[in-house]
Amino acid sequence: MRVIVYGVGAIGGTVAAALALSGQEVVGVARGSQLAAIRAGGLSLLTPDRRLHARFDCLADPGEIDLRPDDAVLLTMKTQDTVAALERLRAVGLRGQPVFCVQNGVANERFALRRFANVHAVTVMMPASFTKPGEVAAFASPRHGIFEIGRYPEGCDADDEALAAALERANIATFVTPRVMESKYGKLIVNLSNAVEAAVGPGARETRYPALLRAEAEAVLETAGIAWRDVGAGDPRREALMRWQPIPGVERIGGSSVQSLVRGTGSIETDYLNGEIALLGRLFGVPTPVNAAFVEIGARMVRDGRAPGTLGEAEVAAALAAQGA
Amino acid sequence: MRVIVYGVGAIGGTVAAALALSGQEVVGVARGSQLAAIRAGGLSLLTPDRRLHARFDCLADPGEIDLRPDDAVLLTMKTQDTVAALERLRAVGLRGQPVFCVQNGVANERFALRRFANVHAVTVMMPASFTKPGEVAAFASPRHGIFEIGRYPEGCDADDEALAAALERANIATFVTPRVMESKYGKLIVNLSNAVEAAVGPGARETRYPALLRAEAEAVLETAGIAWRDVGAGDPRREALMRWQPIPGVERIGGSSVQSLVRGTGSIETDYLNGEIALLGRLFGVPTPVNAAFVEIGARMVRDGRAPGTLGEAEVAAALAAQGA
Repeated sequence: MRVIVYGVGAIGGTVAAALALSGQEVVGVARGSQLAAIRAGGLSLLTPDRRLHARFDCLADPGEIDLRPDDAVLLTMKTQDTVAALERLRAVGLRGQPVFCVQNGVANERFALRRFANVHAVTVMMPASFTKPGEVAAFASPRHGIFEIGRYPEGCDADDEALAAALERANIATFVTPRVMESKYGKLIVNLSNAVEAAVGPGARETRYPALLRAEAEAVLETAGIAWRDVGAGDPRREALMRWQPIPGVERIGGSSVQSLVRGTGSIETDYLNGEIALLGRLFGVPTPVNAAFVEIGARMVRDGRAPGTLGEAEVAAALAAQGA
Repeated sequence: MRVIVYGVGAIGGTVAAALALSGQEVVGVARGSQLAAIRAGGLSLLTPDRRLHARFDCLADPGEIDLRPDDAVLLTMKTQDTVAALERLRAVGLRGQPVFCVQNGVANERFALRRFANVHAVTVMMPASFTKPGEVAAFASPRHGIFEIGRYPEGCDADDEALAAALERANIATFVTPRVMESKYGKLIVNLSNAVEAAVGPGARETRYPALLRAEAEAVLETAGIAWRDVGAGDPRREALMRWQPIPGVERIGGSSVQSLVRGTGSIETDYLNGEIALLGRLFGVPTPVNAAFVEIGARMVRDGRAPGTLGEAEVAAALAAQGA
């Protein structure tokens, strides 16, 4: 199996580097300064124990890859960039090879299945940061992270087993499961607080919002009949496999939404995190005003070029009031 | 109610012109040569009886509109352009006003409901063509078309009634229904043949493909438990309200997918027509290889810049064989 990592950010970079460092065949697809840096000097993977350095092929577009039947594609871009990536993959001839959605949210799998038959979901628990072009940091120890993996919408097959074996060799604890979406919905619940952190900064946990967001989500998933499993702080695998450790000289700048704002990517994943709960709430008639408010807040922060943590309590409260929360 | 028609193509142009001609307040959002032509000289609406000429405000972006509480937004772009349009509408401050998806396929409503609370679906039966910048042709008589309209995912409300009244005044027969998505799925079944027409030309109806596409769709909707109503040739309202009539000097160039290829728009709606059936087939374990093949064919025709009707029988058969059909 050759692994194509499409999107070499915090997660994609850690996965690509770890695969390459364990002697496995990997090709990255990246953009801009990240692409240039990796081509020029490889990708550094900073971990709590040591600084590793990986070399692998990195390209600007899947069209530069001579696709093989044993390729597996890992989608590691944000959801708002998934459809364009899928269209490129189809245009360059991807057909029966497995497509793995190594992404937050639960929308990517549906985007992929509309265009490809062999689609898999991966639940990602991996505290990692894109620190600068040519460098990513993975803060977990002893493993870089924990993945769950399975076929979408359900089941598991030889492709899941093959990728899991590759990831295990790359120091990513990987569990194959026939109901992977249950853990992706559990991860979605964890990710609902990303927008709070983006809005008010590291003090997000001390606010009342994470609990409100979670309660709305639990209520709407219950009504919608969508099963989920806790993969947050209550998941016992975290303590055994994935303890957060500091990396000297590296500050963890926050979750993926904070990182999007810091990097000025011009987009944010909120529509597919809090927005998923708002969508389900409207579909099933369950009030989800707090999630709807944070969708608004996320969109506003990107639009106005706001730095993470710069929304005051009054502005957040006004956004909630506008949604009737 | 002021009606904002976002996308002034065949359907949006007919609707906008008919609303303006009946003395109602309408604002168009258009691009390129269509925008320039409407600004310079209005929009001509060719019908079987006569040539009408409408004047209305037309803008390049919703940001140029001073939004009002009594605005209703009609999305009349193709599905592949919907998300970008929704993001613009949110950015310029649309909030509680109703958003009506006057579009083929069944994906737009979900895209809209992720971002806005007040979303409505409109089933469009309206044979119309974009003939040239500043001109559209509507071939039906005595009415320009038949719409069904209702709240998404279900129900109907005062916004539906208000738009229906406006459309009725504009000579579009409009039926408010609490289960509008049933007719949108019925229209989806009709639209599955658009890709056949795009591939092999006007002889599409004589091929075996329309019946195969439809049989797959009926089977997968049955398994998925999705209700639909026939709004195709079997709908008795067509004979009474919407008879196709020739327009002297105007050739109807085919359905919306053919029109996309002729205009060289660089995209095609197939992913949201045949692709919807392929997606449901994969989600529910029902084989849909013929629809999957036409998804491939649609994507290929756009990618390779193929003119409509230029795929030979052998090329279509090969695409089907590649999907195991």
